[in-house]
Amino acid sequence: MNEACVFCRIIDGDLEGIVVYEDELSVAILDHRPLFPGHCLVMPRSHYETLSDLPTPVIGSFFSKVQLISRAVEKALIAEGNFVAMNNRVSQSVPHLHVHVVPRRRKDGLKGFFWPRYKYKSDEEVLTVQTAIKNAIGDLQK
Amino acid sequence: MNEACVFCRIIDGDLEGIVVYEDELSVAILDHRPLFPGHCLVMPRSHYETLSDLPTPVIGSFFSKVQLISRAVEKALIAEGNFVAMNNRVSQSVPHLHVHVVPRRRKDGLKGFFWPRYKYKSDEEVLTVQTAIKNAIGDLQK
Repeated sequence: MNEACVFCRIIDGDLEGIVVYEDELSVAILDHRPLFPGHCLVMPRSHYETLSDLPTPVIGSFFSKVQLISRAVEKALIAEGNFVAMNNRVSQSVPHLHVHVVPRRRKDGLKGFFWPRYKYKSDEEVLTVQTAIKNAIGDLQK
Repeated sequence: MNEACVFCRIIDGDLEGIVVYEDELSVAILDHRPLFPGHCLVMPRSHYETLSDLPTPVIGSFFSKVQLISRAVEKALIAEGNFVAMNNRVSQSVPHLHVHVVPRRRKDGLKGFFWPRYKYKSDEEVLTVQTAIKNAIGDLQK
């Protein structure tokens, strides 16, 4: 527990949160300023800042709970789909990993997110980016 | 493999994709119309349509690869953070589960996504939504 972290304090019961699910590893609450009603935040109880910080042994059980909440949100809100997202560091309001689960309907106005798109200037730029990512993966796997 | 699926065909080598990573379970490619250069799509080789369809035994290994790619994209593009997201059904261009991994920088223009927010009209609405989700979770866990 990190005393300075709002989500740790909610998980600890020190601050009020609208809990929809909890188990030994994870807690899910309603976002208090939702994109749409039913927008949930799923977080690990332990204070990991970003996806990068989540230890490998808990990734499976944590994302199984994200899957469960995404199914439940869609079912409960009688939605047509759902959006699952994490902001890691940039645009991350609270530095405690939280996965947004948002019910979606066609023409609900959110599709603007995936616009505008960038166009790679050349095949060389594509190759440069591809190589940089492949090298970074190689370094990280060492 | 689903013959009608563009991603299955890329994974199968039948269509060209700019692959940055592959193993027995997952393939990651560059999105050809990225939000920013380095925007990757991580997908399971098998044709699962959405997060809901991903079998529990592969969730851990699949999201470990998503974590790896998110670290690598941030490192390779010298970014300040990253954004990891899935559109399930609504806004999902190809019905084969794919996780967007996008490098992020402060003031890069993407933060507008999480606006505007909705305000619950009353405590009763919050309670209704909370109860619906809790009930859906209970049903799904039966």
